[in-house]
Amino acid sequence: MRGQRTAAWSPAAGLLAITVGVLIASNHVATAQTLGSLETPATPLVLKAQGSFFIGGERVEQTRTEVGDLGPEGHITIHQMYVRYMVPQDENGRLPVVMVHGATLTGKSWETTPDGRMGWDEYFVRRGHPVYAPDQVGRGRSGFNQAVFNNVRAGSVPAASQAPWLRFSDESVWPNFRFGPKTGEAYPDTQFPVSAAGELAKQAVPDMSFGMPQPNPTLRALSDLATQLQGAVLMGHSQSGRFPLDAALLNPGAARGLVLVEPGACPATYTAEQIATLATVPILIVFGDHRDTPTGLPTLPSWQDRFEACQALIGRLTAAGGRAEMFDPPARGIRGNSHMIMQDRNHLQIADVILQWIDERVGRRPAGTN
Amino acid sequence: MRGQRTAAWSPAAGLLAITVGVLIASNHVATAQTLGSLETPATPLVLKAQGSFFIGGERVEQTRTEVGDLGPEGHITIHQMYVRYMVPQDENGRLPVVMVHGATLTGKSWETTPDGRMGWDEYFVRRGHPVYAPDQVGRGRSGFNQAVFNNVRAGSVPAASQAPWLRFSDESVWPNFRFGPKTGEAYPDTQFPVSAAGELAKQAVPDMSFGMPQPNPTLRALSDLATQLQGAVLMGHSQSGRFPLDAALLNPGAARGLVLVEPGACPATYTAEQIATLATVPILIVFGDHRDTPTGLPTLPSWQDRFEACQALIGRLTAAGGRAEMFDPPARGIRGNSHMIMQDRNHLQIADVILQWIDERVGRRPAGTN
Repeated sequence: MRGQRTAAWSPAAGLLAITVGVLIASNHVATAQTLGSLETPATPLVLKAQGSFFIGGERVEQTRTEVGDLGPEGHITIHQMYVRYMVPQDENGRLPVVMVHGATLTGKSWETTPDGRMGWDEYFVRRGHPVYAPDQVGRGRSGFNQAVFNNVRAGSVPAASQAPWLRFSDESVWPNFRFGPKTGEAYPDTQFPVSAAGELAKQAVPDMSFGMPQPNPTLRALSDLATQLQGAVLMGHSQSGRFPLDAALLNPGAARGLVLVEPGACPATYTAEQIATLATVPILIVFGDHRDTPTGLPTLPSWQDRFEACQALIGRLTAAGGRAEMFDPPARGIRGNSHMIMQDRNHLQIADVILQWIDERVGRRPAGTN
Repeated sequence: MRGQRTAAWSPAAGLLAITVGVLIASNHVATAQTLGSLETPATPLVLKAQGSFFIGGERVEQTRTEVGDLGPEGHITIHQMYVRYMVPQDENGRLPVVMVHGATLTGKSWETTPDGRMGWDEYFVRRGHPVYAPDQVGRGRSGFNQAVFNNVRAGSVPAASQAPWLRFSDESVWPNFRFGPKTGEAYPDTQFPVSAAGELAKQAVPDMSFGMPQPNPTLRALSDLATQLQGAVLMGHSQSGRFPLDAALLNPGAARGLVLVEPGACPATYTAEQIATLATVPILIVFGDHRDTPTGLPTLPSWQDRFEACQALIGRLTAAGGRAEMFDPPARGIRGNSHMIMQDRNHLQIADVILQWIDERVGRRPAGTN
């Protein structure tokens, strides 16, 4: 299924030279991916359907200042969730997989990797699963509520009314995402394509998580999406690693399986009743390697702490009769995986384990249903 | 090529009922699209490649406050442009088409329409053209520079340092996008699927145009994209309607054809030298109907004014030996098209005219090249 490394548009030999010529125009230009680095798979992708839509959203009335003063006051829609989807020609009852990205990122996380390889979105489609990749509410193509910023600008509310926009600097990404102990210094066995780390940096967008309403509208949107799909596997990553759990609690019947990829939290605060509900759903938790790397973010738990919290959650779920499992690649001799495991060089090896788990533990739709 | 109206995942009969049950949970929930309204084409889409990447970007150093105070100060990347692409299995030398969206919108403009029909992105691919759909720098998956907002919040710079975020309220969209004279009152012949106007509202995101560096980094990114593609047709819409002109001036050899869809401006300020350059490139300008609708935005020109400015530009280009043309649907008896012409009910009829123009005026790559 994996293809040769050629450009999507079969570039002539002169492409790289042209590209470099463009890119050195400014010292400040970030390290750039050439389009020639984008892989073309060996076989075509055959889709029954693809496109995008929104889930949820709230129609609110805002003042002329709040909408930016160009047009009149009136109604806008906020807190909708953008979802891009691809449905393979041959799904054969395989369940849709909803892939949710982490902090300061968007649905791009699951698309083409920083070094130009096929993303998990396409790979899961090629393995027969419809894939739905949202942008979390408040980010990317889902937009956010701009009213407070325009009110601060107008002086009608204090500057502290607006929450901080969160970004991770490259200096925090390298240890926190466990490419290596510090920026530019990779673990010898790292699976992350560190020469393309500059392309990962471009995937980052400002994150308004601290200014979102609670509960985060993304949770309801994920549950509603799974409900409309009449059952789906919910996959979260990092910040959204716990979202599949929280969405499943809103409609456990629609959450047919949960995959928590490097979850930022496995809460110890779920009640016995919530644990009993979550114990009805197959759950897989996936972590990478080098979890003892000091993250440089002392206000947050270490990745080893998070791993152990997830083991504790698995213990509670198992005690309640649940089917929760840990996929710990180092324990299987697979070393060097990072926090961005879906972009690591061995990302299809990791995906294959998840796909096998879905096949064996979650299964397909019954014959005769969709 | 158009298919039956069934859901992408072949919903069981109970889907609509389930969906309505979810959606009436709150009075504030926006009018919602059911997933069952998404069309599945009659034939599969066969792609040689698909994915996404970034063009451009600037690596800058920011303070701990500027990056949101969770992590340490350091370097982040800003002003990169996200691009999603699809390459058809059979391109046969047809040129790539780069589709750029308008104000307060994202690349979603070209994807599935608000009422669930195939977007122009897929249609152009099905007609053999590779399609590249970016999010303008400063919006959507391209992100923006959050530093000034965090500095305002910290009190280190005045509140007025942050530019306003622009949104269009539904009350300004209806007359300005010419669905009808006011919200909820559609022209009898409107081609816009007004019953799905609430879904268009969800496509809107806050627009940081007033806070962008000048020249807008999107222009260089579009030119660099066309250069890396070794030639492309550049298509802009509304706010970005003039972007193909400005990008072509940066590298006219790479801009093989320009399509200006309902451009917000056809500047009269291009120099004779610039006009001579633009006269080397085939240009098509497309407008919809009802251009005399009062927009309710008195600080901006009317759409009839913009149409006439574009006719004047065509006159200058023609006098300089250029090949610029106006596609004015009402003059061909096609009535009721809106500003969101790529989403109108007759959007494929409009697309067919543009595709024919590309075929006849721009042509394909010479045989033996890509």
